[in-house]
Amino acid sequence: MTFSVTILGNNAALPAHGRHPTAQILNHNEKLFLIDCGEGTQMQLDRYFIKRSKIEHIFISHLHGDHIFGLMGLITSYLLLGRKKALHIYSPPSLKQIVEIHNQSSESEMSFPLVFHELTAAEPTIIFESNLLEVYCFPLEHRITCYGYFFQEKVKDRKIDKSKIKKHQLTINEILKLKAGEDIVREAEIIKNKDLTISPTKKRSYTYCTDTIAIATKYSILANCDLLYHETTFTKEEIERAKLTFHTTTHQAATLAKLLNVKKLLMGHYSAKYRSLDIFEEEAREIFEESYCSVEGETYSI
Amino acid sequence: MTFSVTILGNNAALPAHGRHPTAQILNHNEKLFLIDCGEGTQMQLDRYFIKRSKIEHIFISHLHGDHIFGLMGLITSYLLLGRKKALHIYSPPSLKQIVEIHNQSSESEMSFPLVFHELTAAEPTIIFESNLLEVYCFPLEHRITCYGYFFQEKVKDRKIDKSKIKKHQLTINEILKLKAGEDIVREAEIIKNKDLTISPTKKRSYTYCTDTIAIATKYSILANCDLLYHETTFTKEEIERAKLTFHTTTHQAATLAKLLNVKKLLMGHYSAKYRSLDIFEEEAREIFEESYCSVEGETYSI
Repeated sequence: MTFSVTILGNNAALPAHGRHPTAQILNHNEKLFLIDCGEGTQMQLDRYFIKRSKIEHIFISHLHGDHIFGLMGLITSYLLLGRKKALHIYSPPSLKQIVEIHNQSSESEMSFPLVFHELTAAEPTIIFESNLLEVYCFPLEHRITCYGYFFQEKVKDRKIDKSKIKKHQLTINEILKLKAGEDIVREAEIIKNKDLTISPTKKRSYTYCTDTIAIATKYSILANCDLLYHETTFTKEEIERAKLTFHTTTHQAATLAKLLNVKKLLMGHYSAKYRSLDIFEEEAREIFEESYCSVEGETYSI
Repeated sequence: MTFSVTILGNNAALPAHGRHPTAQILNHNEKLFLIDCGEGTQMQLDRYFIKRSKIEHIFISHLHGDHIFGLMGLITSYLLLGRKKALHIYSPPSLKQIVEIHNQSSESEMSFPLVFHELTAAEPTIIFESNLLEVYCFPLEHRITCYGYFFQEKVKDRKIDKSKIKKHQLTINEILKLKAGEDIVREAEIIKNKDLTISPTKKRSYTYCTDTIAIATKYSILANCDLLYHETTFTKEEIERAKLTFHTTTHQAATLAKLLNVKKLLMGHYSAKYRSLDIFEEEAREIFEESYCSVEGETYSI
């Protein structure tokens, strides 16, 4: 089952060196989730052949322009294309007012339900749930209200060895019990669950943290995550500037990745002052070996 | 003296085929004027090595998203770069409210004066004037309030043949009279203006019309314009759809160019349904030979 993230933009506020403002696409089992929507997101979707029509949920970290200025363009294109399906947007409050004033000024009428989910939680909280996936938001610490997101596969049912269904003449009820991990108790016999089922694949998880100082260690839910995308706006020597602007350095992100015991750290939200990014990997790996610079257009498996 | 326009985006509302929403840079004597500001304008400026810091005046045709969704990104980048110089924005009313709600949501404070000039004129009206150039707005006919813009060089003073200043020992007062076209009357002689001066270069002009039905012939001020940029959202067979959506076809734009007796017609604002644009030039030239498809990144002399 696909679980991957494609980077559409990974620069900080000022687009530079061909790098775009923040946006990425999470693909879980061919369901697409958009995370942040900086200016040019819809053009980036086109460039990487990603179908915008498949997006039903958008997760916005905060209302700084480099995370939302592509949203109105995307919504307007959906209108032009006659979208009917609902679009859910999760974000800190007041995004709805922004969209409404744009629609009023352009005399646009919505052709599809646009559902705003305003985030106010002070602790990690489930905000979306399907049969296969659950999404949590959790507060970050930036200059304005900002949320991180945690995407986790659900604990799956045990898989039944199909050849044994016929052999044991299992009923629907018995199959459900087996999937839930129970043994089958019949009048004349007990059939052990472990003889008929196999373990589900491990549940995988993805964490998204930008823009923020490095505080995610305080959320135990993020421990042992498979892939952590964390902002590294600055290199290690800019620690004071990072503090002042509520951003993170390479060393801080790598330390956090190590403490959370994640499998892999993916860095992004690079300041426009850096043309080359080589130093980011070098510095982060001084602390956490599995540190990588995200690259626009690349897809990372989770 | 430079007078040219560089196309940053020339597609209709839906970005497609690598073409961007509307934006263009008018360069007059190295003063840059931005006309419309679709999503991605600041990245297009970077791509074509145009210095955004040189822009002091932005002319917005109307408040449909494909003409303004790049504006907030540009303003935010100016803030990040510490701009101090005033920025003047000319547009139909209510753009100010859009900018303000964005700034409130992101808790941004302006570091430079942002001056909104709200257009309400019903006739061609001068809205900007320098020593060298004057800019008129004039109402177009679209689904919402929309303005076209007319850029015209001013009538220039006559040029004095410098070698004759010393020969005739001209005073400052006499020089000013000569520039204004007068003869010099001295006690003992009359020096004819035509013997000391040469004609100024012809005043050139540029007209910008999008989005609209083809109505610009009603403005006599636009007659004999050097370069007319006019929208051609559709080819000739889509005349009904053009009427319905308040847009223009190739034949309509070419007819208008011919009636206005302009030197050259530059087409743009192509519907996303057209991948190839060859047919636009073919059709327009059936009526007006000097018709050209605008190409993104190209600069056209006026």
